[in-house]
Amino acid sequence: MSADDEWINRSQLMIERWIAEDLDRPEPLPGRIIEAMRYSALAGGKRLRPLLLLAAAEYLKIPADRVKPAALAIEYVHTYSLIHDDLPAMDNDDLRRGKPTNHKVFGEALAILAGDGLLTEAFAKLAQLTQDDFPAQNVLYAVAGLAHASGAHGLIAGQTADLAAEHHNIGLSALEALHAKKTGAIFEAACQIPAWLTGNRGAAAGLQGFGSHFGLAFQIVDDILNVIGDSVIMGKSTGTDVSLDKATYPRVVGIDAAWKMAYHHQNLAEESLDKAVGQADWLLALLKRAVNRSA
Amino acid sequence: MSADDEWINRSQLMIERWIAEDLDRPEPLPGRIIEAMRYSALAGGKRLRPLLLLAAAEYLKIPADRVKPAALAIEYVHTYSLIHDDLPAMDNDDLRRGKPTNHKVFGEALAILAGDGLLTEAFAKLAQLTQDDFPAQNVLYAVAGLAHASGAHGLIAGQTADLAAEHHNIGLSALEALHAKKTGAIFEAACQIPAWLTGNRGAAAGLQGFGSHFGLAFQIVDDILNVIGDSVIMGKSTGTDVSLDKATYPRVVGIDAAWKMAYHHQNLAEESLDKAVGQADWLLALLKRAVNRSA
Repeated sequence: MSADDEWINRSQLMIERWIAEDLDRPEPLPGRIIEAMRYSALAGGKRLRPLLLLAAAEYLKIPADRVKPAALAIEYVHTYSLIHDDLPAMDNDDLRRGKPTNHKVFGEALAILAGDGLLTEAFAKLAQLTQDDFPAQNVLYAVAGLAHASGAHGLIAGQTADLAAEHHNIGLSALEALHAKKTGAIFEAACQIPAWLTGNRGAAAGLQGFGSHFGLAFQIVDDILNVIGDSVIMGKSTGTDVSLDKATYPRVVGIDAAWKMAYHHQNLAEESLDKAVGQADWLLALLKRAVNRSA
Repeated sequence: MSADDEWINRSQLMIERWIAEDLDRPEPLPGRIIEAMRYSALAGGKRLRPLLLLAAAEYLKIPADRVKPAALAIEYVHTYSLIHDDLPAMDNDDLRRGKPTNHKVFGEALAILAGDGLLTEAFAKLAQLTQDDFPAQNVLYAVAGLAHASGAHGLIAGQTADLAAEHHNIGLSALEALHAKKTGAIFEAACQIPAWLTGNRGAAAGLQGFGSHFGLAFQIVDDILNVIGDSVIMGKSTGTDVSLDKATYPRVVGIDAAWKMAYHHQNLAEESLDKAVGQADWLLALLKRAVNRSA
């Protein structure tokens, strides 16, 4: 196993354990809210966003333990967005990561609440960082940054535009703007949070560029795999973009041009980093894996 | 008009203007996400939670302007919870404050996203307070407190237990625990946030008691009005608790005993305040209005 693979596997296991421990809580009242949140938060997944956050921390020489609440926060935002995205009123997906989606197991009402709960918990976690960990004002910048990335000017704007684009022809620049928000915003935040926490503005700008191009490369490959991928390997339904008539790179530019664009953004992501800042190996390993994957 | 009425009316108008100005933003991408958020945030309502926050600020001698982002945050959390609560998968309400509910106007998908957007925006607003406004660590305590109150151990636990209690007989203590989370947690946070921001721990304890009993008194009256109220005056459907077979005070203890309990919690709320701290007139005016209302 390469050093890259070893670091990724070890970090994935650590994130898995962090989540399991963090959501090991009794139900506060009758009902299955914690169980529903745990179900989706522990339903596998590549943990790419917290891995990016840990890789960015490593790049800035911050030990992983110090950014643990932030890593959990970014994964909770991602999990909430998947739960709501899978709902019948949205993408109506029955399968996610090879398992029944949250609303298939717990019903729609609890799935909506579990998403709400994880989104709220993300901010609870981030605000657990105190002035003993980082300057309090820097933690506030991270809270504001995560809220901006996941809110109506970030992730949610992207989701809305994605719905609005169903059954419509949109051009490449509109598609890129959509994906920059729907996918890119959270990747950017994941990369920048360690820089915000330490107040390293110079590194934040480079990490934003890395996250932004990483996000586009990742999303283009995601779109391609939705067309050509194997649903068994992917652990989720394929061909759904076509059946929902979604705006995707393969639809707008075709498969071959989409691959070229993915590699182009991979290069731009690499060029965004200033290797004098620190050890960028893990960031680059994650980038490589995001582009060269079959699931 | 009494001085109380005058303060309440003036503050309601101010909150209304704050919201209208804050959500006067262009759509970030094609889609109607900001419009959907605005629709519900400006669809009337008593603005009770931000009024409580402003009254608590007055009690602690903090000018209203200084807590404006916090007042918006608490109202956004409330509005998001109403949008999601009204969804077909939850209470399936068509009418709210005399207007069609969010999903009736924008569809379910956008209503889910508008709720998500307002919840996220609440944290964005609170994190706009900087160390120039209050000590940054105190702002972080407020973020953590709002997240706790609105999360899976607060509001969402209450909503979950409310769903779980439909078609079940529950006792008075389980009902009170449910309402303490579903309604009380946000009222408590509204009252405490000004104390958290200024680091006034002594006042925070009293304000928590006030908010907690205020919330129970308010919810009991809400339950009663759902049985005996006039849907035209209320601006929302009545009789819905019975048709959904909800756990309510009238169902568990009857109308007369429910009124007695409301007055009891009104008294306990009053006794929680230490009038030596400051001018409690507005807090008490809001309490009176919460109990003596027809809508």
